[in-house]
Amino acid sequence: MIKVGIVGYGNLGRGVELSLKLNQDMSLVAIFTRRDPSSIKPLTSGAGVYKMDDILGFKDKIDVLVLCGGSKDDLPVQTPMLSEHFNTIDSYDNHGEMLKFFDSIDAGAKSAKKTAMIAVGWDPGMFSLNRLFGETLLPNGTTYTFWGEGLSQGHSDAIRRVEGVKAGVQYTIPSKKAIDLVRSGANPELSTRDKHTRECYVVLEDGADAAAVSEAIVTMPNYFEPYDTTVHFIDEQTLLKEHSGMPHGGFVIRSGSSSEGVNQVVEYSLKLDSNPEFTASVLVAYVRATYRLATKGEFGAKSVFDVAPALLSPKDPRDLMREIL
Amino acid sequence: MIKVGIVGYGNLGRGVELSLKLNQDMSLVAIFTRRDPSSIKPLTSGAGVYKMDDILGFKDKIDVLVLCGGSKDDLPVQTPMLSEHFNTIDSYDNHGEMLKFFDSIDAGAKSAKKTAMIAVGWDPGMFSLNRLFGETLLPNGTTYTFWGEGLSQGHSDAIRRVEGVKAGVQYTIPSKKAIDLVRSGANPELSTRDKHTRECYVVLEDGADAAAVSEAIVTMPNYFEPYDTTVHFIDEQTLLKEHSGMPHGGFVIRSGSSSEGVNQVVEYSLKLDSNPEFTASVLVAYVRATYRLATKGEFGAKSVFDVAPALLSPKDPRDLMREIL
Repeated sequence: MIKVGIVGYGNLGRGVELSLKLNQDMSLVAIFTRRDPSSIKPLTSGAGVYKMDDILGFKDKIDVLVLCGGSKDDLPVQTPMLSEHFNTIDSYDNHGEMLKFFDSIDAGAKSAKKTAMIAVGWDPGMFSLNRLFGETLLPNGTTYTFWGEGLSQGHSDAIRRVEGVKAGVQYTIPSKKAIDLVRSGANPELSTRDKHTRECYVVLEDGADAAAVSEAIVTMPNYFEPYDTTVHFIDEQTLLKEHSGMPHGGFVIRSGSSSEGVNQVVEYSLKLDSNPEFTASVLVAYVRATYRLATKGEFGAKSVFDVAPALLSPKDPRDLMREIL
Repeated sequence: MIKVGIVGYGNLGRGVELSLKLNQDMSLVAIFTRRDPSSIKPLTSGAGVYKMDDILGFKDKIDVLVLCGGSKDDLPVQTPMLSEHFNTIDSYDNHGEMLKFFDSIDAGAKSAKKTAMIAVGWDPGMFSLNRLFGETLLPNGTTYTFWGEGLSQGHSDAIRRVEGVKAGVQYTIPSKKAIDLVRSGANPELSTRDKHTRECYVVLEDGADAAAVSEAIVTMPNYFEPYDTTVHFIDEQTLLKEHSGMPHGGFVIRSGSSSEGVNQVVEYSLKLDSNPEFTASVLVAYVRATYRLATKGEFGAKSVFDVAPALLSPKDPRDLMREIL
């Protein structure tokens, strides 16, 4: 049994708990929170809920700690600190700061003889793997990543900051036309506007000016201005009923030629009812790999690129060869 | 520079040669053949063509030998023998005999301190990896593999053995209806007949009875009887003009739930203009990994399941993290 701890009990932490129940070789030992532990009722019987301040008392009771905080404020502090005491795994997703994040962890984890698996989920994570396979298998080609159709947390937050907006969500929609063009092997050059559109569902404050709100959204730099954006006004009941889920997904397509005029197209796609539950599912499979790397003495910061796929499976390597190779 | 040798110069061997030209860190040193070497003109300047009998003289001149023979008669003999003298890689594809094949190689390669990468291509190979990711990420689910639309060598051979058939090819067509049902998350139980149909393009011998040939094909046990099979009669010119390519492809779909009622669908698909050239492209990326495993002292028989993806890339691990993680 791999003994697991969860740090942070939001959507992602609850997803990790649900996923652990589907994996017979892992058990949830403890949940750590900054809230009042008595306010949290875990789904798992026997799993205690503790204050973050008490976490170092669990050094010998936990094999891998799953860090479920945010990439902006939590993980840049928590991963370097906790990976000096525990094997850890996180879903850090700030692509632009990845090397800096790695460098803040690697040496400390190595000297503490711990393994810190970083940036695990679907992007970064499974999408990164498919970008790597794509460019190594077809060096002469182009990789396209499309996101959606799905709810974007960052863009939904941006809408909610607009004056006159009471509530709202934003969906990122990949362009069917652009995807079909990529799938055809045409290797198109695609602008930001060509690849995705944005659909906003907005509940107005009483007396707010719909036209002004719409204008403020569609012209917002970086978030909406570079895209074709549509704003729909709905009432609060509709928002609750039809827009409370967290679906997401996307596509990584590598289109390349193996010789003159011979096109090869590789596509990986996800259609997810729940973004946080799928991210959690990936984290939990990589908990197993993290534990095994630590057991083999492969310490320091690691990513999905460093994990031989067999390490993800609970099955015996011979069974894998017989059943699915 | 990784020094590479090719054993067998058919469609796959030529594909490996083409792929090596796209990878700047590898060079083709020698091609080995059972034919008269003077009958072969390689595309690569400087690559010599030699008789198979002379291969052991190249023990110190080649880092990895790519075995491009067939799975039925060549590889079961060649891989165990050659992996006692060289690091090797092959595309052995007899799924049912995989463990036996592994066991015929592993101990010999280990005691010779060589690495033998087996069963590399797209199925086995990339499809196997996606079956592994699918079942580990979504333990509560079903994996579906569809092949095609593509030309099946084995079934084409079977057609050509029917009395009255002068020439012919067979295409495996995955059922659009079945794929859409799987993509919807419905987790259907699908029979062999539900998943694929077979389309045959046949040139008759002079005076052959079309109805008898058609009947002999569609009722052929194992090959065609379990499928809905359509036979088209065409003339020899049409066969040459429209059916000389070797397109193929397929889909691996994992459909599972991460919690009650929450469906997650992961799909990997290939659309290949040339089956042998894509298989060759995968082999060449794994040549790099084979060389690196051998350099690290990881000897014995290995599969794609044992290869950390970073080992496939010519890029520095820090560049990978910055560019595509």
